[in-house]
Amino acid sequence: MPQAGEFQIIEKFFTYQTFGAWKSQGVGDDCAIIDTGAGRLAVTCDMMAMGTHFLPDADPENVGYKALAVNLSDLAAAGAIPRAFFLSIGLPRRDDGWLADFSRGLMGLARESGCALLGGDTTRTPEVNGRHAPVTISITAMGDLPAGMGLTRAGAKPGDEIWVSGTVGDAYAALKCRWGEWTVMPDLEPALFARMDRPTPRVALGQAIIGAASACADISDGLLADLGHILERSGVSAEIDWERLPISTALKSMTIPRQHEAALTGGDDYELIFTAPVSARDRIYEAALRTGTPVTCIGRVVPRTSRAVTVRAGDGMLVELTKVGFDHFDHEEG
Amino acid sequence: MPQAGEFQIIEKFFTYQTFGAWKSQGVGDDCAIIDTGAGRLAVTCDMMAMGTHFLPDADPENVGYKALAVNLSDLAAAGAIPRAFFLSIGLPRRDDGWLADFSRGLMGLARESGCALLGGDTTRTPEVNGRHAPVTISITAMGDLPAGMGLTRAGAKPGDEIWVSGTVGDAYAALKCRWGEWTVMPDLEPALFARMDRPTPRVALGQAIIGAASACADISDGLLADLGHILERSGVSAEIDWERLPISTALKSMTIPRQHEAALTGGDDYELIFTAPVSARDRIYEAALRTGTPVTCIGRVVPRTSRAVTVRAGDGMLVELTKVGFDHFDHEEG
Repeated sequence: MPQAGEFQIIEKFFTYQTFGAWKSQGVGDDCAIIDTGAGRLAVTCDMMAMGTHFLPDADPENVGYKALAVNLSDLAAAGAIPRAFFLSIGLPRRDDGWLADFSRGLMGLARESGCALLGGDTTRTPEVNGRHAPVTISITAMGDLPAGMGLTRAGAKPGDEIWVSGTVGDAYAALKCRWGEWTVMPDLEPALFARMDRPTPRVALGQAIIGAASACADISDGLLADLGHILERSGVSAEIDWERLPISTALKSMTIPRQHEAALTGGDDYELIFTAPVSARDRIYEAALRTGTPVTCIGRVVPRTSRAVTVRAGDGMLVELTKVGFDHFDHEEG
Repeated sequence: MPQAGEFQIIEKFFTYQTFGAWKSQGVGDDCAIIDTGAGRLAVTCDMMAMGTHFLPDADPENVGYKALAVNLSDLAAAGAIPRAFFLSIGLPRRDDGWLADFSRGLMGLARESGCALLGGDTTRTPEVNGRHAPVTISITAMGDLPAGMGLTRAGAKPGDEIWVSGTVGDAYAALKCRWGEWTVMPDLEPALFARMDRPTPRVALGQAIIGAASACADISDGLLADLGHILERSGVSAEIDWERLPISTALKSMTIPRQHEAALTGGDDYELIFTAPVSARDRIYEAALRTGTPVTCIGRVVPRTSRAVTVRAGDGMLVELTKVGFDHFDHEEG
């Protein structure tokens, strides 16, 4: 739900003693996990703005798809079954062509995932210097969880293995290529760009590893940043073997420093990263096979040390990284 | 949830054949009423933007209060018990003073109404001409409903009486006074302005009239517009007696045309407008007394005619009005 650097705002201004009849866990998690008395729900909420989260010339069908996909990914990280979502959309003006394409992308994924649009609000975006601000989209998505179940970022234990789904770093590499900063062979470009424009929320996998995984997050801020959230909430550290990281053919075709940057710090992949005891290994593979989702064991949880994550290359040397994750308000005073 | 004029956008682009495991009623209503299998929920979602819904110099504590209040009002219109809400907030920059005041207003009402903040997202607002757009707030609020119960806009029947809570037109008159277009005596000003800045969601009344009222909406677009939604959904028409409308002392001090304009077409009051059979009259008064909420019978539901609402003055003459309700996208081509 929140991206890494917004934590200070949420902690400082919107954290308070709990009250009310509904009991929630998972504050600071991908989803709130709520016991309503009648049942257990997972709820998540994401806001996207043109210019901040997607480019003004982005295909509106992809924008619609991705707006829901990132929320489904949060539900996946909790192991929830997506059921319903609510859409608030701020528009600078009514643009029927844009809306039709946006709606097609959004509703296509909604139908595919059984997550129904049950309400919403549309409004005119505010004016700045005589011009209306670009499109702003906020989605709240809700899912079902079995009573007493649900994955959170807390629960990783020393000795657990660390897993990721799919491949990592592709969305970041795609953005770099689209910006013209990096290049990739033309025949690899469409698949790479699709990873940024139409990420696959790992909804079936999330449900399948409930009860087997000890902690889970989706990779929205970057592998190290999101693993970092798990480690912090669980009070542990981790060792990652760089050689085991699942890297796509497109990213493999780039230099090692670029691979490091994309796979370890690049966000927007919407893969799941999760921990599980060694004894659950067969259940993890079985869940992967059953849901048709590739999973890879990339390291292990260790007792807490001064370093949250250690990444070792094949030669045993440490991989050093400066930039970790992404924060909209990173460079501002608190 | 949606304001009057956004209906075309929602109907055209976001209406589709239902699917999924959760069954919903109340599309186009103040809330979605959802049967999750485990229980019945009411969910609503509202987006507010500085410059569109509140003035840039508005007291952030009032902005926080009102952002939640309008959602609680939607839950009230469904008769739901508020339980939880989710906040997405887009900010041009981190402004700790603004955030602290906003949070105090928001969380004060949250605590008072037992509606807990269980998650959210913060992001940077998009840039326009090199400047970030002003604050955008989206809240999704959720409440509990008894199984099989809940108020919607459908269900008003010829012969039913039409009721409103509190007084109507004050928020609109306050806005006109703040803009300097209308004036009010200085000693009446604070109470009038409070009606715009800190509206009272009629949460207890909404719950108390479940089972007695036949249809209900909150007055966000204006009395005639919101009554119009009930009439349209119910397939009926209405007659309103102008003389019976509950008008505050402040609004009574203004000219009759201004009273008409404010009370009949002005939005933002967040009072409830509801219909009930004559046989439920005692239960309505009992609910009003128990919850300490003034209610007034202002007219009756009649069989559908070519005119949705007829408003009669004391002399039996029709009150004619041009402007009805409010639509963010009213003046644009479809």
